[in-house]
Amino acid sequence: MLAGSESLGGASNGEAAGPAVFLFDRRLEQSEGGERRLHAGGSFAQFNNDIRQAFGISSNENFVISTTNRTEVTEANFSLLIRDGITLYILKSIDQLLLSATKEKIEFLPHYDTLVKSGMYEYYASEGQNPLPFALAELIDNSLSATANNSGIRNIQIRLLFDETQGKTSVAVIDNGKGMNTTQLKNWAVYRLSKFTRYVDESREQGGYVRPPPMPRSLNSDISYFGVGGKQAVFFVGQSVRIITKTTNTQDVHEFILSKEDFEKKEKNKEFIYSGFIRNRKPADSSHVSEDERYLHNFILEEKGKDSFTAVIVTGVQPVHIQFLKNFFHLWTRQLAHIYHYYIHGPKGNDFKWNKGIARPAGKIDIEIFMFEKGKSPRIVNLREIKSDMQTLYINSASESFEFKAVVGGDGVVEGIIRYHPFLYDSETYPEDPYFSSGEDIDDLDDDCIIIEKGARGKRPIFECFWNGRLIPYTTIEDFDWCAPPKKRGVVPAECYNRISGVLFTNDKFEVSTNKLTFLDLSLKLKDKNTLFTRIINGQEQRVKIDRDFAVWVKDCHAKYDKQIKYIGFKGTITRTDI
Amino acid sequence: MLAGSESLGGASNGEAAGPAVFLFDRRLEQSEGGERRLHAGGSFAQFNNDIRQAFGISSNENFVISTTNRTEVTEANFSLLIRDGITLYILKSIDQLLLSATKEKIEFLPHYDTLVKSGMYEYYASEGQNPLPFALAELIDNSLSATANNSGIRNIQIRLLFDETQGKTSVAVIDNGKGMNTTQLKNWAVYRLSKFTRYVDESREQGGYVRPPPMPRSLNSDISYFGVGGKQAVFFVGQSVRIITKTTNTQDVHEFILSKEDFEKKEKNKEFIYSGFIRNRKPADSSHVSEDERYLHNFILEEKGKDSFTAVIVTGVQPVHIQFLKNFFHLWTRQLAHIYHYYIHGPKGNDFKWNKGIARPAGKIDIEIFMFEKGKSPRIVNLREIKSDMQTLYINSASESFEFKAVVGGDGVVEGIIRYHPFLYDSETYPEDPYFSSGEDIDDLDDDCIIIEKGARGKRPIFECFWNGRLIPYTTIEDFDWCAPPKKRGVVPAECYNRISGVLFTNDKFEVSTNKLTFLDLSLKLKDKNTLFTRIINGQEQRVKIDRDFAVWVKDCHAKYDKQIKYIGFKGTITRTDI
Ligand SMILES: Nc1ncnc2c1ncn2[C@@H]1O[C@H](COP(=O)(O)OP(=O)(O)OP(=O)(O)O)[C@@H](O)[C@H]1O
Ligand SMILES: Nc1ncnc2c1ncn2[C@@H]1O[C@H](COP(=O)(O)OP(=O)(O)OP(=O)(O)O)[C@@H](O)[C@H]1O
Ligand SMILES: [Mg+2]
Ligand SMILES: [Mg+2]
Repeated sequence: MLAGSESLGGASNGEAAGPAVFLFDRRLEQSEGGERRLHAGGSFAQFNNDIRQAFGISSNENFVISTTNRTEVTEANFSLLIRDGITLYILKSIDQLLLSATKEKIEFLPHYDTLVKSGMYEYYASEGQNPLPFALAELIDNSLSATANNSGIRNIQIRLLFDETQGKTSVAVIDNGKGMNTTQLKNWAVYRLSKFTRYVDESREQGGYVRPPPMPRSLNSDISYFGVGGKQAVFFVGQSVRIITKTTNTQDVHEFILSKEDFEKKEKNKEFIYSGFIRNRKPADSSHVSEDERYLHNFILEEKGKDSFTAVIVTGVQPVHIQFLKNFFHLWTRQLAHIYHYYIHGPKGNDFKWNKGIARPAGKIDIEIFMFEKGKSPRIVNLREIKSDMQTLYINSASESFEFKAVVGGDGVVEGIIRYHPFLYDSETYPEDPYFSSGEDIDDLDDDCIIIEKGARGKRPIFECFWNGRLIPYTTIEDFDWCAPPKKRGVVPAECYNRISGVLFTNDKFEVSTNKLTFLDLSLKLKDKNTLFTRIINGQEQRVKIDRDFAVWVKDCHAKYDKQIKYIGFKGTITRTDI
Repeated sequence: MLAGSESLGGASNGEAAGPAVFLFDRRLEQSEGGERRLHAGGSFAQFNNDIRQAFGISSNENFVISTTNRTEVTEANFSLLIRDGITLYILKSIDQLLLSATKEKIEFLPHYDTLVKSGMYEYYASEGQNPLPFALAELIDNSLSATANNSGIRNIQIRLLFDETQGKTSVAVIDNGKGMNTTQLKNWAVYRLSKFTRYVDESREQGGYVRPPPMPRSLNSDISYFGVGGKQAVFFVGQSVRIITKTTNTQDVHEFILSKEDFEKKEKNKEFIYSGFIRNRKPADSSHVSEDERYLHNFILEEKGKDSFTAVIVTGVQPVHIQFLKNFFHLWTRQLAHIYHYYIHGPKGNDFKWNKGIARPAGKIDIEIFMFEKGKSPRIVNLREIKSDMQTLYINSASESFEFKAVVGGDGVVEGIIRYHPFLYDSETYPEDPYFSSGEDIDDLDDDCIIIEKGARGKRPIFECFWNGRLIPYTTIEDFDWCAPPKKRGVVPAECYNRISGVLFTNDKFEVSTNKLTFLDLSLKLKDKNTLFTRIINGQEQRVKIDRDFAVWVKDCHAKYDKQIKYIGFKGTITRTDI
């Protein structure tokens, strides 16, 4: 069934005999119900007559016709008020009490701002970060899902077309994933249709949604989740999106455009809001492309020889986003490298020692960024090349790591890793986040007394958190009881506890908000008394008390790796003239 | 126009002659377009014949009928595949290339999870807080907006009906505000229809939305904003909502039910999803109430004598929420008192000294909570009585305050207040948040050297932030340059800077996320170099350098209010026997 076809009234009848209205005679008390459907096609007088006839009201009886808001329908407002599907009362007077109840059929179609403004308020700045990279991440998420079963390389490209001489500015995300057929492309646009509810056309045949098997670090690529991400991202970035896609089964390419302007036009023309046209065509056919989108010709030419693909092309890009993407290229590419660190580098992450000379894992994921500007050579980066994202820094400045696991409520799995960043010679090796102001002002308040303001880690919480393998940027976990600095003076200096960083990897049994910026209840669940933490050594769960083990581990790290030289009590410089 | 009436196909035609399908003859290259609409009412053979006739295909020519997903339409799948509005191709073979493009009309109505799951992922736990109070706050927001123009007392009640002997468990929010007419009640249910877009039926007459004039602390009650809050809140708390409402103009009471179960039923029955019935009736008429909702009889009886009101009654309340509401009554009522502190107590807040004996301001807002449990006397609290919410604690432990103002981008106004909480005798007076773990472990690492871990305030940022007068709970602002502890040793001990708390009050030119949990870009905007801070004394802007003035203020506060007695170098107890 197509949505809307059962709606009130019925356009075709309405056209023939005027709008259909529902009438309740409530001049007297009577049993509920009893409405009649009339067509109000002619004049007000005609309508009055029709009513008299239908309800058997003699010509010497008076009545008023009222809307349910108690506005009297009159000659003057008749054509303004009467619409298809409206409910009216027949009363003795306009303020007569409703002696028996009435049922008024209404429709409450979501406003198109559901799509168009979805992004606008969804992405927000936490810690002063610009959320734009997190919107782009939604499109990368979709491409990761779509390429999950690729046999060869998984290629995801973000192309920023900022050279206006080539057509209007656009942000495109292109992947060589499985693509969409027309049903799936239509479903792309259905707000809130998730893989769990999308049984009607697709999964029904395939027997519904199947959760992927457990994977190390939950790197399951199963990150299309709520049915909102693409829409939110696209309308956060710009005002219009064109999707071009092809599956392997057929030679047809499908195109669909969703735009704010279209919605406004449909509203104005009183057309059904949630409808549009898919263009089906042969590959490399760009005959429909207009002059101001001429960069599309090349895009479309590339279709030749591609088995399956999806391109999501956003136009009407907000100028403030263009500025940010241009001016902070390093910042946001680094952030993306951080979000997808473990997808790009595998479950061990970007360990320079480990990765040297080792062949890349199968199912390799290339996420490439291309930025084209007028009169400049394009900027290109593969996220894997980025060496300054926080996870890369953490991994490569760590001298040892401590792995653990927690199981919550049966199937909620959290893998965790804590890394020790030693003090070497005259400084901490704990990596600084160049874009994160730690807010610390470490000053000597007193010459004899150094204030250790949380030391190396500063105010940062220990744990960053990944969900199904991708970073959820705004949720961090301060610590757990067993890895927090001990209340009493411990066997190692307190600052050692500030030399640890950590990562948590959860599966999708922990819920995240639809914008994928925060976990809903990770911290609550992990703090639950029933949550059991076990240490993992070489992939094996250990039967040990994790708090004791962890304390010993910190002590060992301190003893083995911290090479602390402290110069205390500077007396002045002495030049030895005696040698 | 009623939404949906322009949808594909057309039910009435469809019923008469079978589903209407769109057919493209693409056996040969031809100009685009050229689709024909046919009715596929009869058998597959009949349909084939109709096609031959319509497209002039002779009986010795072969063709296949294909869906746009390239499934061949056959005798076997004909009745399964053919639906009203579907697009089909006529081809020479099923995998024939599309020689010219086709246009396929689609509909992409948002899934009803847009409403039903909207709340589920919108409210999240930050700092380990249960977000339920913030969902309830959305309903209070609506009641605040609705009562804004009340001439007398503004009364908002939350009634928790947890006595199952009275009917099924429910959470009700009832106000004596302006109520809704049937159009407005319908609009209640329209997702994303905000006061800015709701021009069609209401504001058009009233000339569209008008921003309220500036108010102290932006306490303008104008906090119905995005057109999502009520729906999200209701479906976060439970599974079904009944709204009962009445405006002053008429004697009619309107009732509407929105429920997850209804949506599922409509989906199953292939009815139009976004439709339902408003019940219009006289006041105090509860004849329609079923046995398991018998508590409604009393509710409805109360309608007598009420001029206008709205009751939002949520049922199908999640057990986990009931548990929380029962077990943490003090916690969440205190949180609500915090969120609405300045609405309840006025722009000066709950200052015990100030408020003593002073008549309550006009337009007083009573927010009352009633919890009914079986066999217990009901728990009742007026939020104004709560004395332990953080703002009350801040206000009453402060010895002096420093007010300021910032203007951002012309019309973004932020009022600010900083309060000094002195050290008195042997302890800090900076109030502890009993429910906020500061995460601090203040230990003496060294006997001679006391580590001052940010002192009184702990890790808490200085500023809590209010938007249009209500707290946005998850956004805090650490500090500004001019009120941050000085980098160099200042004229006052550094810990003085940790004796300050602060509040920011913004107007709606600063955007918040749709769940009203976070600001989108307050911190980015305030950190902008062009943001100018001015000090306010007695409501007057001062032409002073705020950083200098603030430093002097802190110094004065320290000198005037800190009564610090430090016992240093404990030598033992001496009992004076000489007196
Ligand atoms: N690049 C792509 N390739 C193939 N299919 C895609 C692609 N992007 C989106 N889709 C399809 O469109 C659907 C809607 O995408 P959208 O991002 O809006 O929601 P989602 O991914 O299902 O959920 P989420 O809200 O978690 O992003 C996806 O579920 C997927 O089926
Ligand atoms: N208690 C009430 N009294 C009168 N009208 C109400 C009440 N609650 C809701 N409404 C009406 O219903 C509309 C929808 O409410 P809803 O909370 O869903 O969205 P909103 O308040 O407009 O925006 P927001 O997303 O900011 O909450 C409101 O704009 C208001 O017109
Ligand atoms: Mg997605
Ligand atoms: Mg609201």
